[in-house]
Amino acid sequence: MRWQQIGELECSVARSLSVVGDRWTLLIVRDAFLGARRFEHWQASLGLSPALLTDRLSKLQQHGILERRVYQQRPIRHEYRLTEKGVDLYPVVVSLLGWGDRWMAGDQPPPLELVHRRCGAPTTPTLTCSECGEPLDPREMRPAPRSPEVAALMQSVREASSPRASEAPDRE
Amino acid sequence: MRWQQIGELECSVARSLSVVGDRWTLLIVRDAFLGARRFEHWQASLGLSPALLTDRLSKLQQHGILERRVYQQRPIRHEYRLTEKGVDLYPVVVSLLGWGDRWMAGDQPPPLELVHRRCGAPTTPTLTCSECGEPLDPREMRPAPRSPEVAALMQSVREASSPRASEAPDRE
Repeated sequence: MRWQQIGELECSVARSLSVVGDRWTLLIVRDAFLGARRFEHWQASLGLSPALLTDRLSKLQQHGILERRVYQQRPIRHEYRLTEKGVDLYPVVVSLLGWGDRWMAGDQPPPLELVHRRCGAPTTPTLTCSECGEPLDPREMRPAPRSPEVAALMQSVREASSPRASEAPDRE
Repeated sequence: MRWQQIGELECSVARSLSVVGDRWTLLIVRDAFLGARRFEHWQASLGLSPALLTDRLSKLQQHGILERRVYQQRPIRHEYRLTEKGVDLYPVVVSLLGWGDRWMAGDQPPPLELVHRRCGAPTTPTLTCSECGEPLDPREMRPAPRSPEVAALMQSVREASSPRASEAPDRE
């Protein structure tokens, strides 16, 4: 399979990565959450070549993650704002942030703290169950395919496995 | 900046992407959560070239996300298991899954359902505040830099902005 084809897989992870899995894309979205709206903001933050940055912003616009708006008429200037679809990437960015805080910061404290303005406390975003509210432990999750394609994918990774290979991942 | 340098940024999102931001890496991790442990599982699922798959598995091992174990002595065969650091990528994968379900599935139902075995219900993993337990709304979050580098990064994306550019992102 080629990378350009992953959007055709019947898998939501693959479909998401087909849009946000390119280099730089999630860093551009990260900066949007930190307030970036204009070309020069991303250029100052990421130091990308103008051509590469233009390409990524344009793709994010095509995919409906950023929308372009005029903020000045003479001369005409545009800025980019996160759409609802873009704002909904927050859990992806924050999950990467949390993992980096836990595993990539060495002995240093995390470089960024998130304060939940609603309760006023510095928060550790936590993935919980929508039904019972408990934090989700990957070992307590059962993936249930709803399409033949995903069932086949799950079967393909399990075929020819020892019985242990069909267990949930564990920490041992 | 070059992509290979992002791990040096004082930002946990960038540091995470320096490890899991390469093409295929998160799909390999996804398959591990679905039970993949052996080279042939990933090859069947992703159809990667052996050289590329070997490279990615080797990097995941170097970064301590997968660990290699002998599962057969004659001839010697290895399998790859998620470490604790690897299992902790679950929120990243599940956030990509949720976003793909909401925005990339068209009119189709999500291809995979997650059942929370602890409560028995199909679940929608939800990012909540560790302190008050409420679901996190990106517009209610305040990023507070704890290092001069991150403060400079936030400043750089805001400099030369209109007052609106320093607001939290919104859906308008």
